[in-house]
Amino acid sequence: MFTQESIRKYFEEKLKREEIKGSPGQLYEPIKYMIDLGGKRLRPVLTLMGYGLFKDDIEKALPQAIAIEFFHNFTLIHDDIMDNAPVRRGKTTVYKKWNSNTAILSGDTLFALAYQYAQKADKDILGKVLDVFSRTAIEVCEGQQMDLEFEDNNNVSVDDYIEMIRLKTAVLFAASLKIGSIIAEAPEKATETLYKFGETIGLGFQLQDDYLDTFGDEKIFGKKTGGDIITNKKTFLYLKALEKAGPETKKELLNYYGSNDFDDGKKIKAVKEIFKKLEVDRDTYNLINKLFDESVAHLEKLEVKAGKKAELKRVAENMIKRDK
Amino acid sequence: MFTQESIRKYFEEKLKREEIKGSPGQLYEPIKYMIDLGGKRLRPVLTLMGYGLFKDDIEKALPQAIAIEFFHNFTLIHDDIMDNAPVRRGKTTVYKKWNSNTAILSGDTLFALAYQYAQKADKDILGKVLDVFSRTAIEVCEGQQMDLEFEDNNNVSVDDYIEMIRLKTAVLFAASLKIGSIIAEAPEKATETLYKFGETIGLGFQLQDDYLDTFGDEKIFGKKTGGDIITNKKTFLYLKALEKAGPETKKELLNYYGSNDFDDGKKIKAVKEIFKKLEVDRDTYNLINKLFDESVAHLEKLEVKAGKKAELKRVAENMIKRDK
Repeated sequence: MFTQESIRKYFEEKLKREEIKGSPGQLYEPIKYMIDLGGKRLRPVLTLMGYGLFKDDIEKALPQAIAIEFFHNFTLIHDDIMDNAPVRRGKTTVYKKWNSNTAILSGDTLFALAYQYAQKADKDILGKVLDVFSRTAIEVCEGQQMDLEFEDNNNVSVDDYIEMIRLKTAVLFAASLKIGSIIAEAPEKATETLYKFGETIGLGFQLQDDYLDTFGDEKIFGKKTGGDIITNKKTFLYLKALEKAGPETKKELLNYYGSNDFDDGKKIKAVKEIFKKLEVDRDTYNLINKLFDESVAHLEKLEVKAGKKAELKRVAENMIKRDK
Repeated sequence: MFTQESIRKYFEEKLKREEIKGSPGQLYEPIKYMIDLGGKRLRPVLTLMGYGLFKDDIEKALPQAIAIEFFHNFTLIHDDIMDNAPVRRGKTTVYKKWNSNTAILSGDTLFALAYQYAQKADKDILGKVLDVFSRTAIEVCEGQQMDLEFEDNNNVSVDDYIEMIRLKTAVLFAASLKIGSIIAEAPEKATETLYKFGETIGLGFQLQDDYLDTFGDEKIFGKKTGGDIITNKKTFLYLKALEKAGPETKKELLNYYGSNDFDDGKKIKAVKEIFKKLEVDRDTYNLINKLFDESVAHLEKLEVKAGKKAELKRVAENMIKRDK
């Protein structure tokens, strides 16, 4: 059955059987801990779906699905050090639970393990798979670097932000799908179309993340909203607001984002009011919808079974139009 | 000409022409800085020699030689963070010159760049090259983890130490040679023999490093000796001394290595005297010679031109019997 739920279940079961161990144990425990934290496994599911669009024996793309999930978790381990993040998926982050050195080195090992899986492909397509994998890895690093630089840069534009999330988040969704389709030996045009589809839903996914962090319903969202506002994060909402604001409102917003001394609750309330006044919540909603439509337009071009195409549209819907 | 000097020169010239740049610049500057710091380029020279033993057009192995050098420099960037090392090759380390976050992320990028070069191989051998490359990358991480754990472990044996330097240092020399020979499509037995040769000279190389750090002639060595003693590093010399020492001397040695409060000069002098009294300088020298003989025995088995074999023996001599 070609549904995201059945494929996710399949992936989880297979992942559980992969032994993550070795010597010294201290190197592998944090890796196992991180992988076992779970998550939605969106990226490997996309790899398997990218394969499944063209062929049915999706186990052929399993090594690359694992490679993508390992790579993603490697970036999370290192990002959490850089961001001083104490919590990930409701649990203590690797660098907090162990220490920075362990997190650096376990991350490096996980990156190499990811390649060990990625390279398990037939020789006729191995080069293509690795071209996408390595280029994407570099782009994700570039995106993270942009994100770090934004913290101290007061001239970030909305376009800069979109380029940052494209690199940091969207290209990995794109690569996940493309690699799956390469393993299935899909026509090059189709692999490119899937890449575009993945990139577009990746952008939408991140924008929805930004939106929910501020305007999400806490009961459904499952965690407190307003985190980005408290940490003065330059999200789409904030940058769009700065772009639209008149001099007075702009000054007010810059004032809120220039300090950590405000009362959290009051600051969240005030900034949300500014966002609403400037209608950047609506702008975000509109952009997300536009990206969804674009992603569907890419899908339309694919010459695959209608049922499979419909399922991929459902994936896009779940990723972009989610409320948690 | 098949000499290590001509091959090193060839590699340096080719490396200089590789453009290391991209956006954001802040991500690529530390990478370029690190690569430009230089060093002996031993590993890529071994890759090119591993190829050159069997075929003459060594430019075919250039991408993998660069991959090995990039990988090595990636490990140095991350190791320097973990070791709090302020100086590398006489210059400020990346993490000191920039910061830890930059060093983590530039290192990650360099690791991915290394793979981009490693994967530039004909499809018939690509899988083999990457098998060695990824397995070695993981082993180097395991070696670094062991090294870090040794700091707080008072039960490290000489054998533990040899296994640590095998993983942290020797396997990369081994892989460098093996990958070169794989690119040259050498017989599998020959690639294995070269691996063993590289592993053996790698062990000798590290032991000579330990020896020189304590007993080197500062004028020739080019830097101050005694660094390992001051930082209480559990080297072969120290572990062998602990193994041989009677209860009194052992207590004295443990006392010196249990504190940072001693006068540096006095501590170095006293520990060196203990090492000499126990003849661990001679033990180290003997083990290095034994490893050299072993490496030569591996070489003898290779069916390649006598002149090329002799040059590889010179490499082993320079690496193991060096005085700087």
